[in-house]
Amino acid sequence: MWGGRFSARPSDIMQAINASIGFDQKLAEEDITGSKAHATMLAKQGIITDADRDAILGGLDAILAEINAGQFPFSEELEDIHLNVEARLKDRIGEAGGRLHTGRSRNDQVATDFRLWTRKSLDLFDTLLTDLMAALLDQADEHAATIMPGFTHLQSAQPVTFGHHMLAYLEMFARDRGRMRDCRVRMNESPLGAAALAGTPYPIDRDMTAEALGFDRPMANSLDAVSARDFALEALAAASICATHLSRLAEEMVIWTSAQFRFIALTDAFTTGSSIMPQKRNPDAAELVRAKVGRIMGSLTALMIVMKGLPLAYSKDMQEDKEPVFEAFESLELALRAMAGMVRDMTPNEARLAEAAGAAFSTATDLADWLVMTLNMPFRDAHHVTGRIVAMAESQDLTLSELDLGDMQGVEAGITQDIFSVLTPLASATSRTSYGGTSPIRVREQVARWRAALSK
Amino acid sequence: MWGGRFSARPSDIMQAINASIGFDQKLAEEDITGSKAHATMLAKQGIITDADRDAILGGLDAILAEINAGQFPFSEELEDIHLNVEARLKDRIGEAGGRLHTGRSRNDQVATDFRLWTRKSLDLFDTLLTDLMAALLDQADEHAATIMPGFTHLQSAQPVTFGHHMLAYLEMFARDRGRMRDCRVRMNESPLGAAALAGTPYPIDRDMTAEALGFDRPMANSLDAVSARDFALEALAAASICATHLSRLAEEMVIWTSAQFRFIALTDAFTTGSSIMPQKRNPDAAELVRAKVGRIMGSLTALMIVMKGLPLAYSKDMQEDKEPVFEAFESLELALRAMAGMVRDMTPNEARLAEAAGAAFSTATDLADWLVMTLNMPFRDAHHVTGRIVAMAESQDLTLSELDLGDMQGVEAGITQDIFSVLTPLASATSRTSYGGTSPIRVREQVARWRAALSK
Amino acid sequence: MWGGRFSARPSDIMQAINASIGFDQKLAEEDITGSKAHATMLAKQGIITDADRDAILGGLDAILAEINAGQFPFSEELEDIHLNVEARLKDRIGEAGGRLHTGRSRNDQVATDFRLWTRKSLDLFDTLLTDLMAALLDQADEHAATIMPGFTHLQSAQPVTFGHHMLAYLEMFARDRGRMRDCRVRMNESPLGAAALAGTPYPIDRDMTAEALGFDRPMANSLDAVSARDFALEALAAASICATHLSRLAEEMVIWTSAQFRFIALTDAFTTGSSIMPQKRNPDAAELVRAKVGRIMGSLTALMIVMKGLPLAYSKDMQEDKEPVFEAFESLELALRAMAGMVRDMTPNEARLAEAAGAAFSTATDLADWLVMTLNMPFRDAHHVTGRIVAMAESQDLTLSELDLGDMQGVEAGITQDIFSVLTPLASATSRTSYGGTSPIRVREQVARWRAALSK
Amino acid sequence: MWGGRFSARPSDIMQAINASIGFDQKLAEEDITGSKAHATMLAKQGIITDADRDAILGGLDAILAEINAGQFPFSEELEDIHLNVEARLKDRIGEAGGRLHTGRSRNDQVATDFRLWTRKSLDLFDTLLTDLMAALLDQADEHAATIMPGFTHLQSAQPVTFGHHMLAYLEMFARDRGRMRDCRVRMNESPLGAAALAGTPYPIDRDMTAEALGFDRPMANSLDAVSARDFALEALAAASICATHLSRLAEEMVIWTSAQFRFIALTDAFTTGSSIMPQKRNPDAAELVRAKVGRIMGSLTALMIVMKGLPLAYSKDMQEDKEPVFEAFESLELALRAMAGMVRDMTPNEARLAEAAGAAFSTATDLADWLVMTLNMPFRDAHHVTGRIVAMAESQDLTLSELDLGDMQGVEAGITQDIFSVLTPLASATSRTSYGGTSPIRVREQVARWRAALSK
Repeated sequence: MWGGRFSARPSDIMQAINASIGFDQKLAEEDITGSKAHATMLAKQGIITDADRDAILGGLDAILAEINAGQFPFSEELEDIHLNVEARLKDRIGEAGGRLHTGRSRNDQVATDFRLWTRKSLDLFDTLLTDLMAALLDQADEHAATIMPGFTHLQSAQPVTFGHHMLAYLEMFARDRGRMRDCRVRMNESPLGAAALAGTPYPIDRDMTAEALGFDRPMANSLDAVSARDFALEALAAASICATHLSRLAEEMVIWTSAQFRFIALTDAFTTGSSIMPQKRNPDAAELVRAKVGRIMGSLTALMIVMKGLPLAYSKDMQEDKEPVFEAFESLELALRAMAGMVRDMTPNEARLAEAAGAAFSTATDLADWLVMTLNMPFRDAHHVTGRIVAMAESQDLTLSELDLGDMQGVEAGITQDIFSVLTPLASATSRTSYGGTSPIRVREQVARWRAALSK
Repeated sequence: MWGGRFSARPSDIMQAINASIGFDQKLAEEDITGSKAHATMLAKQGIITDADRDAILGGLDAILAEINAGQFPFSEELEDIHLNVEARLKDRIGEAGGRLHTGRSRNDQVATDFRLWTRKSLDLFDTLLTDLMAALLDQADEHAATIMPGFTHLQSAQPVTFGHHMLAYLEMFARDRGRMRDCRVRMNESPLGAAALAGTPYPIDRDMTAEALGFDRPMANSLDAVSARDFALEALAAASICATHLSRLAEEMVIWTSAQFRFIALTDAFTTGSSIMPQKRNPDAAELVRAKVGRIMGSLTALMIVMKGLPLAYSKDMQEDKEPVFEAFESLELALRAMAGMVRDMTPNEARLAEAAGAAFSTATDLADWLVMTLNMPFRDAHHVTGRIVAMAESQDLTLSELDLGDMQGVEAGITQDIFSVLTPLASATSRTSYGGTSPIRVREQVARWRAALSK
Repeated sequence: MWGGRFSARPSDIMQAINASIGFDQKLAEEDITGSKAHATMLAKQGIITDADRDAILGGLDAILAEINAGQFPFSEELEDIHLNVEARLKDRIGEAGGRLHTGRSRNDQVATDFRLWTRKSLDLFDTLLTDLMAALLDQADEHAATIMPGFTHLQSAQPVTFGHHMLAYLEMFARDRGRMRDCRVRMNESPLGAAALAGTPYPIDRDMTAEALGFDRPMANSLDAVSARDFALEALAAASICATHLSRLAEEMVIWTSAQFRFIALTDAFTTGSSIMPQKRNPDAAELVRAKVGRIMGSLTALMIVMKGLPLAYSKDMQEDKEPVFEAFESLELALRAMAGMVRDMTPNEARLAEAAGAAFSTATDLADWLVMTLNMPFRDAHHVTGRIVAMAESQDLTLSELDLGDMQGVEAGITQDIFSVLTPLASATSRTSYGGTSPIRVREQVARWRAALSK
Repeated sequence: MWGGRFSARPSDIMQAINASIGFDQKLAEEDITGSKAHATMLAKQGIITDADRDAILGGLDAILAEINAGQFPFSEELEDIHLNVEARLKDRIGEAGGRLHTGRSRNDQVATDFRLWTRKSLDLFDTLLTDLMAALLDQADEHAATIMPGFTHLQSAQPVTFGHHMLAYLEMFARDRGRMRDCRVRMNESPLGAAALAGTPYPIDRDMTAEALGFDRPMANSLDAVSARDFALEALAAASICATHLSRLAEEMVIWTSAQFRFIALTDAFTTGSSIMPQKRNPDAAELVRAKVGRIMGSLTALMIVMKGLPLAYSKDMQEDKEPVFEAFESLELALRAMAGMVRDMTPNEARLAEAAGAAFSTATDLADWLVMTLNMPFRDAHHVTGRIVAMAESQDLTLSELDLGDMQGVEAGITQDIFSVLTPLASATSRTSYGGTSPIRVREQVARWRAALSK
């Protein structure tokens, strides 16, 4: 395979560790697409004949059909997808097949294939994130005024609306989508024609192949073209960050479906039973989504370590770039699809949410704000007064709105009957009308903004 | 500190694990800047009086002066920078200090401080990356035609130019800079006014504080505003990827300064001696730069794990966001400065590079290309012929250009005297004129392009 | 500092990135202990005079006193703790100070210091883990028969006892302690006397210094002695695994203290209030413990990346070993102390736990088991019957023990009155008497076993 | 599948994310082994009949034969290996198959399978590490007196022997083996019989199944038995640390085989050619071994993140434990086998090593030591004198042993002719006879020690 100089065969373990065909056959379509663009360009530039080009294009199409039909004889001895396709092409069309490799190398070829594949994945994530955002938006729209407890430290803090909570995730996934898009813009350059590392003396036209493959331009430095994997690292980082957002929402779904919370219900479509405990309805999909951040971040770690300290240009270490990316992206795709499904599937338990929103003195801040706004009390003093009233309510086992006015006046004489107008969860949430606040009016504004943005 | 309800003090270990003032005092300036913007807005909106505002602004300026002078009495009992400043403000200006906290919370306050600090760091990295790019550009310019071996697998593959090698890194760092800039654009939104998590009933103007603090707009969801740390994750990811690029160049410097390579020399400014081996000139700075990717990626891992699975909105876990970011950014700043210094400091050993470029049959590909272009031989066949000629040269202990024509013709009869015109390293590099190739003419084009871009 | 050959000073950035005194002063005591052992050995071997030894020992003691008193003039120009102490020693005792460095190097010196420090930390973790285990044991003892729901997927699955749950963590922390101990045994070898990397021609006695420093033996290969950091990686890995266990228990505490669960209560000693919501009792310590796994695993990642691909023997990259370890170990110490405090502080809410244990058809498995054991039904069939009965109970809004016998017989005719003997949570838990099961009798056996083990 | 209560089918995406049969079929043999032990015990305890037992054992054997023959009809709808085998067993033997599941659950079943698989892998690593150690030992034995440069900072520091260098790695891999063994001891406990999480009311004998499966004892807490994955984390950590050692040796091999170093040669069995550069002999296997630390550490990161913050007992997140472990262990196996092959395959270039050992003033320390030992000069002063002599040699372009005595005396008058006895690399290495030092006599002692240890 490597020309006439090698006298002995590789050891078996060498072949086993060296071969990548077991996983890089996933790049078959990108490999053939790239080769077709290259062959077309070679003919246009007069480097190969039109007849050779036609033979090559026909041969490659036939090979792709073979692969898609599951009939391609992949060979581990031929190491990787590039050599497998190349050998098969020679079998099919003879000498012309050998000319395809003019002015390129496996180094720029694999970089091209891998970029095409990554770009396709980024586009898929864009679509899947948009779909998830749409699912969240629908829930936000329907529940713009559904009251629920807002938590800090998993302790009920202030009433919010369910729609507001959904929109918080919509914002996160919108930024995730932005990261995918920025990554796509930055990475959409063609390495093809960088050859082994130094460019080539053949009069190739890299702009032509770049355009044919949908790249914005050829990469400007041939060493960089074959050495760079930051595009994959950036895509993995964007995927990892997105996965933390998914893990947060998934954690909430796991908690919310517990018997103790019962904030939402998922149908049989997204829960499973137990092999021994027939009453269980387990939020398995949410748990698996939560776990996927591990796999995805593990892949980022893996590739980061692989790339650490590698001299230019190509080192074989870089063959370890693909499996982590394949796995991470498959995980993210599953997680995004499952999460969109669950968001659409879930039903908030409005009665239970309202009840929880009213518990735990959740309008204490509203009481404090009333003291500040009505009595002109300094905030910290109002905070202290509120603390004493809460302690009193707790000792009497009452909610704040159930307290006796006289008892409250015993703590702070300036309190009037008007205080009761701010002590219900709905009043609390409705009052928070600052931009970005949880008031239904603000939530509906954001719903409208996103509805417009997503319909573009 | 937490109002009237708590009857007992925290345990010592609780205070020790809870306090963040040991590290978040680094945010003092951002905290005070944010508070001043908030106070100015509160007065403009009529929420506090102008007199209170003036007292607050004056008090905060005095506190910042105290901090900058190292005279501020930081207290661990007051937990964090926010409460330390707030308590000090009350000491200085009394009741008015308590009004500053109206319509905000520590949750949006810390998010604001941390975003301001991160944004400042991203701007610094932009400047430092530009400086490093300029240093690489100068080396590329000076050595656009300096021949060196291009490596794959740390084996001499094809001759390239030193300038071309420098430009490869310039491209990488340019993308790193792009990532920093994209991150800055995405994260430059103001959380201030999100309050604890739900917004506030006070008639605050979030646009006004956002503008005062240089943010592009207020964040559109209050839950998201206090919960999000993806801006820090994205900045850490960009830093980690940049650090892999630094580690690659650093690794090359370590290898290049070895006695066996001697490709470059560093001066005493960037090398150290040994406490026991006086002859040593160790590339310590390069090694430390190489290592920093560990620290930076470690920080990304740390924060990713911290954020995994956190329910909305604020959880105390998120206090563990700052130290990893502080450390990673300090590491990256040091590494970027040191690398720019080394790039400027290093002198390529031209004689040694040229000698190495000529060894190891580095023009074998040129021979193969000649066979293809001149004899119209299929590439793979040319490859095979070349392999046999290289084996012959190796057995005769000659370079390719020293071989006897007749011997070469014994392998392939079509070879003519013209073959010798492509067998020197300079001829090889000069011939690679495809776009992005290593030919000095292409390198100089890229130098000119970057010179223009960097001078903007 | 590096002898006569260097003509120019390091650049400022070189000094900044190179100096480690900012963090390695933490090793001062270990450095001086190691030096004293070395000096004593040098004198014993006749390599230095007794007078020099006495001067050195006296000087080192005085320096340690200075450091402990906070009066040592640390200098960044002197790079690290070793050179700082050495320079100070020369200032104090003159020429004799220079002889201390005979037969050793900074490379074996720092390896010795760092091992001593790590060993001390491992011993501390042993103690802290034992204390945490004791705290868990006390809770297990007191609550060996306190019924609570056992969860899978955060769904109530089968009743268990609170003591059984505590013992599960005790088992985990016991294995963590085992890992710390194994690590200590493996790493307790002395690098001192390996010198720079190759050993030394001086007639030193490495066994003597090893013994003086509490090491089991000198390391058997000098290159390995200065190159190895696997002891730190192993300690970080053990710490990381321990931190995952802590994070799991901390997560449960966060969930259990939520208003929806109310399974346990923590006192004011381990909860905090909110600056804006006076009613909050936040489980901050639990959240911080949960987060620490990020910091600790980040440190492991950091050092792993630092060490990846480093040639032998010492490289400056290895200076980046200490800060990750320092930070991780400080985090683990805090987390272990805080967790032991919380375990002692928490009070299970027995009424609430019992109520939860009876909900959600938690004895469905017991029903299925009764069908198998009493009616000899194949397990899978029993499972199916149970599923139908649970569905019936759910539709009637009853618990299993509240169902009508006739209704159950409608599903499976063989069911008799005896079925009610297995349908309460207490009956369920008590019946699970297999070894390691949750039955109070088994829990008390394990309590006794651990009581004996911990009292040794 | 989950009994009678579920009315609707899972969504397609739910099934896709939920199914593990795609990867956990790797556990088929362990699953069947565990089931056979369980069935045998059930019959012994009288829980099932002997006839049922015989049917089960026969059915399971037949199923394993089917799987090994590649004829088993794996079904994604049946989720995992456990349900696939169980369903097949029922097909084959009818009702008796249903009884196999008595007194156990998928939770303890998968924990058992995974522990058996991990234990088998640890045993394999023990064997492979021993083989690698033997390969290193043979090289050390043959080259106990082969002089080479010892490096710090990739700068020639002091002469060492090639055998000494090999033994340094032998020590590292010996500790790696120790970690694998400690892990095996700690994890070799049986979860079988813990059932879903709480144990079981059936009179099972967990000691009997533990013994049958080669476990040292049953796990003592049923919640822990189904929740714990620290055994996998510990195994991954040991694998990761081992992989850093492999990466270090691999890095050295890559550097050593470069044209600039030429310290060793690898044969065609462990090198590859280039598709475009026929002269290349690339150390691909070494590069791939170097890269594997990324994949392995990525797996550790993945599982650590998965386990972070999971409440007891079983959560579906834990299904994400297997793929990371499978991949990491496959990577480590390949890397260990390839490294042992390369160590055996490599030939040190003795002439080249000796030449390099003599360059770069590598005996400067010996000169300094002579000054100390012969002239009783304080070490730091000797260091300074040596530095000046090295500078003189460098300016005259001479090695130290080529310097003129008079010139040296010009720097330090006390130097005599005897100085030349320590200035050659061989003299230097031979003189370092301290325990663990590089002197051939010490190397041979260590070779003998390890020869004895490995032959046990």
